[in-house]
Amino acid sequence: MEKGYKKKKKWNFNGNEEVNGSTSTISVRGVYNKLTENIKKEDKRGVVRLCRADPTDFFKTTNHASHAIAQALHSFHFNCYSPSGGLPKARRAVADYLSSDLPYKLPPENIFITSGCTGAINIIITVLACHGANILLPRPGYPQYESRAAFCRLQVRHFDLLPEKGWEVDLDSIEALADENTVAMVLINPSNPCGNVFSYQHLQKVAETARKLGIFVISDEVYAHITFGSKPFVPMGVFASIVPVITLGSLSKRWVVPGWRLGWIATCDPDEILQHMEIVTNIRNYLDISCSSPTIVQAALPQILAKTNDDFYTKNLDIMRETVNIFYDRCKDIPCLTCSHKPEGTMVVMVQINFSQIEGIADDVDFCTMLAKEESVILLPGVTVGLKNWIRITFAVDPCELEEGLSRIKAFGLRHAKKLS
Amino acid sequence: MEKGYKKKKKWNFNGNEEVNGSTSTISVRGVYNKLTENIKKEDKRGVVRLCRADPTDFFKTTNHASHAIAQALHSFHFNCYSPSGGLPKARRAVADYLSSDLPYKLPPENIFITSGCTGAINIIITVLACHGANILLPRPGYPQYESRAAFCRLQVRHFDLLPEKGWEVDLDSIEALADENTVAMVLINPSNPCGNVFSYQHLQKVAETARKLGIFVISDEVYAHITFGSKPFVPMGVFASIVPVITLGSLSKRWVVPGWRLGWIATCDPDEILQHMEIVTNIRNYLDISCSSPTIVQAALPQILAKTNDDFYTKNLDIMRETVNIFYDRCKDIPCLTCSHKPEGTMVVMVQINFSQIEGIADDVDFCTMLAKEESVILLPGVTVGLKNWIRITFAVDPCELEEGLSRIKAFGLRHAKKLS
Repeated sequence: MEKGYKKKKKWNFNGNEEVNGSTSTISVRGVYNKLTENIKKEDKRGVVRLCRADPTDFFKTTNHASHAIAQALHSFHFNCYSPSGGLPKARRAVADYLSSDLPYKLPPENIFITSGCTGAINIIITVLACHGANILLPRPGYPQYESRAAFCRLQVRHFDLLPEKGWEVDLDSIEALADENTVAMVLINPSNPCGNVFSYQHLQKVAETARKLGIFVISDEVYAHITFGSKPFVPMGVFASIVPVITLGSLSKRWVVPGWRLGWIATCDPDEILQHMEIVTNIRNYLDISCSSPTIVQAALPQILAKTNDDFYTKNLDIMRETVNIFYDRCKDIPCLTCSHKPEGTMVVMVQINFSQIEGIADDVDFCTMLAKEESVILLPGVTVGLKNWIRITFAVDPCELEEGLSRIKAFGLRHAKKLS
Repeated sequence: MEKGYKKKKKWNFNGNEEVNGSTSTISVRGVYNKLTENIKKEDKRGVVRLCRADPTDFFKTTNHASHAIAQALHSFHFNCYSPSGGLPKARRAVADYLSSDLPYKLPPENIFITSGCTGAINIIITVLACHGANILLPRPGYPQYESRAAFCRLQVRHFDLLPEKGWEVDLDSIEALADENTVAMVLINPSNPCGNVFSYQHLQKVAETARKLGIFVISDEVYAHITFGSKPFVPMGVFASIVPVITLGSLSKRWVVPGWRLGWIATCDPDEILQHMEIVTNIRNYLDISCSSPTIVQAALPQILAKTNDDFYTKNLDIMRETVNIFYDRCKDIPCLTCSHKPEGTMVVMVQINFSQIEGIADDVDFCTMLAKEESVILLPGVTVGLKNWIRITFAVDPCELEEGLSRIKAFGLRHAKKLS
C-alpha cells in the first residue's frame, strides 16, 4: 500500500465504538447473504428459502398495478424529482386509504411518502435520535430498528413479547423500562417476526400505557390487512385520541412489490402533540436530505390503493391460510421445533428449537448454518430478531416448497437427534 | 397539550448543537420550497423556475428507456427486494459503461447501485464519518455534502474554486487545509454549481496533490458527458493509478430521469487501498440498512446504458449549447449580474450580483426572495452552495422560458437600479 495511505486509520463503521461491532448492522438481508454462502453447489435439489419475507417468488402483484406504473412512465410527466414529502396526489391517496379504517379523516399533510418502509423506519429513528433519549423496542422485533438506532446513537430498551400469551406485549415491563427520556415505543402489528395479530383490547391497553408514560407509539403496519386468523387487523391510529401515533406502512407486502420502494409515515395526532414536540418539522427537514420514493410509483399510487380488486387480496390470504395450515401441521411432526402460537397474520412465524431433542448444535446460528450446508434450506436465526435459540420461518411461499423445506428440516433434526446414552 | 407530553423536551434535529441550526439541513429542495412561498398568485405570467437542475420540464427521456422499465414491470420478475449492492446485471452494466472511458476494466464488484446520486452521497459521507476525521469539499459546491456531513458529524473543510481561473481548484489551499485526519476530497466534474469542466491536466494535478496528502478523491460525475464547450469530459478514474477514486454517478441527468432513483458508487482502486482502509466493507455494511434503488429500474439499466441512441445525447447537448448561448448573451445585458465564465457543461452556472448597480437589496437571499415576489422567477441564492452574493441559474430549460426569465431579471435589476445621488 502507498505510504501516505498507510498512515491513515482504518475507518470503523461510523467510527463509534458503541456502533461498531456485530450487533450494529444486523439486517435480514445481511444474514441471508451470509447463510447463502454455506449452500453446497453439488446439492441438486435446489435451495429452499424460508428466510426473507419477500413474497414475490410465489405471489404476483396485479396487472392493474403494473399498468398504473407503465401509464405514469409513458406519460413522461413523472420522471421529475419528487417533492420532499411526496407527490400531493400520492399523499392524498394514502390519507384516504388509511382514513377508511379510522374513526376520523387524516389530512394529506399528515402523510410523508418514503422509500419503502425501510425509508420510513430510517427517517423516524433518525428524527428521534436525541442525546440522552431512548426508545422502547419489542423483543423479538425487526432488526432495522436496532441497526438504525445504534447507528444514530438512539438508546434502545427492549420490552418482551410473551410467547405464552400469544406474543402480547408485556405491559408491566414497559412501565418499568420507561423514564423521562423515553420518547416512544414501537409496535409491529401484525407482528413481524411472531405472526400474531394484536386485539383491539390489547392495543387499547398499549395506548393507555403509553399515554400514562407520556410517550407516543410508532405503529409499524407494513403487514396491515395481511391476516387470516380470527382477529381482524386494527390500526393503532384508532387510539390516536388516547396517544399520538405514528403509523408506518408500505405497498411492499400487501401488493407484493417490495422492489418498488414505496412506503409512508402517517402522523395520527389529533391533539397536535407531535407538532408541538417539533417531530413533524424534523421529519420534514430530514426528508429534504433523504432519498425519495420513485416518482413514477408515487404517480401510480392513487390507482393502486383505490382500485385493487378485493379478489386479489382474498386469493392471497387464502393461499397464506393454506400454507400456515401446512406449516403448523408439519411442525408438530418435527421434534426439534416447537411452534407455540399458530400465525394469524404477516408472512413469518417464530419457532423454538428444542435442544433437548438434538445434539452437536450449539445455538440458532449454528442450527441455521448447518441446515444451509446439509439441506440447502435457509431460515433466519432468532438472534437476528432478538430471540436466541429461536428461528423465524417465512411461510408465504409456494406450498410445495414449504412442504419440501419442512421435510428437509425434519430429516436434519432426526439426523442430529440426541442419542440415548 | 397533554401533561405527560409537556414534560418532554422539544427534540432538536438529531439533538446535536453542531447539527442543529440553519446550515445543517440546507438543500436545494428546501430553499426552492421556501422561495416558492413568495410567489404571488395574482401574477398571471406564470412562474419561471431556474432554481433546480431538474431537466424533465423541457427534456424528455427516450421511449426506449421507458419501454425497458415497462418490460421489467410486465415480466413480474423484478418486483422483489434488490440485493444490497444492486442486481448483478445492473452492477455489470455500470461497470461496462464506466470502463469504456477508462484505461482499465472495472469489475462489477466495484459497483454499488444506490437510490440516485443523493443515495450515493449519503452512503459515502456516512461511511467516512469517523470521530476526528475531516473531508475537503469544494466551495461553491453541492449542499447535500455539507448537510450529510453535518448530520453524521464529519468535519468539513472547504477549498476554493477560483472564478478568475475558470473555477479551477485552488490546489495550494488544499495542501494548507489537509492534515493527518483528512480522509478525502470531493470534486464535482462537470462542476455543479459553476458549469465548468475540468481539463485532463488539471485533474491530473488534483490527483497528484491528493496522493501527496495521502487522501483519496470522491469524484461526483452526476453530470458526466453533459459538456458542450471545448473541453471533453474526463473521468477522474483515469488517474486511479495515482490516487484511489470513488466515482459517483446516476441516470438522473444524462437520461433526464431524476425521479427514477438510480445512482451508483464505483471504486476505482487498482492498488486496493480503499479495501485496506475498510471503506469497501463499510459501504457494503451500510448498504444493508439503507434504501435501495427500485429493482424494476435496475433491471432496465443494462438496456438503458448500452442501447441509448447517440442522437438522443447529441440533440440534448445541442439544445443546452443553444440555451447557454442565450443565457450568456442576455446576461451581458443585465447590469446587476456578471457571469465571469461561460458554462461548458452541467445544467447550471454561477453569476455574481453587482451590488454597485442596485440598491435596497441586502444580499443574495434578499435578491432571490424579492425576485420571486416581484417577478415570479425562482433562482438559487449562492449562499445555498457556499458563495454569498452569487446566484446559481439553471439554463437547461425551454429556451423561451429562459429568455422570459432573463428579461424579468433585467427588469427587476433596472427597477432597483442605484439612483444617481
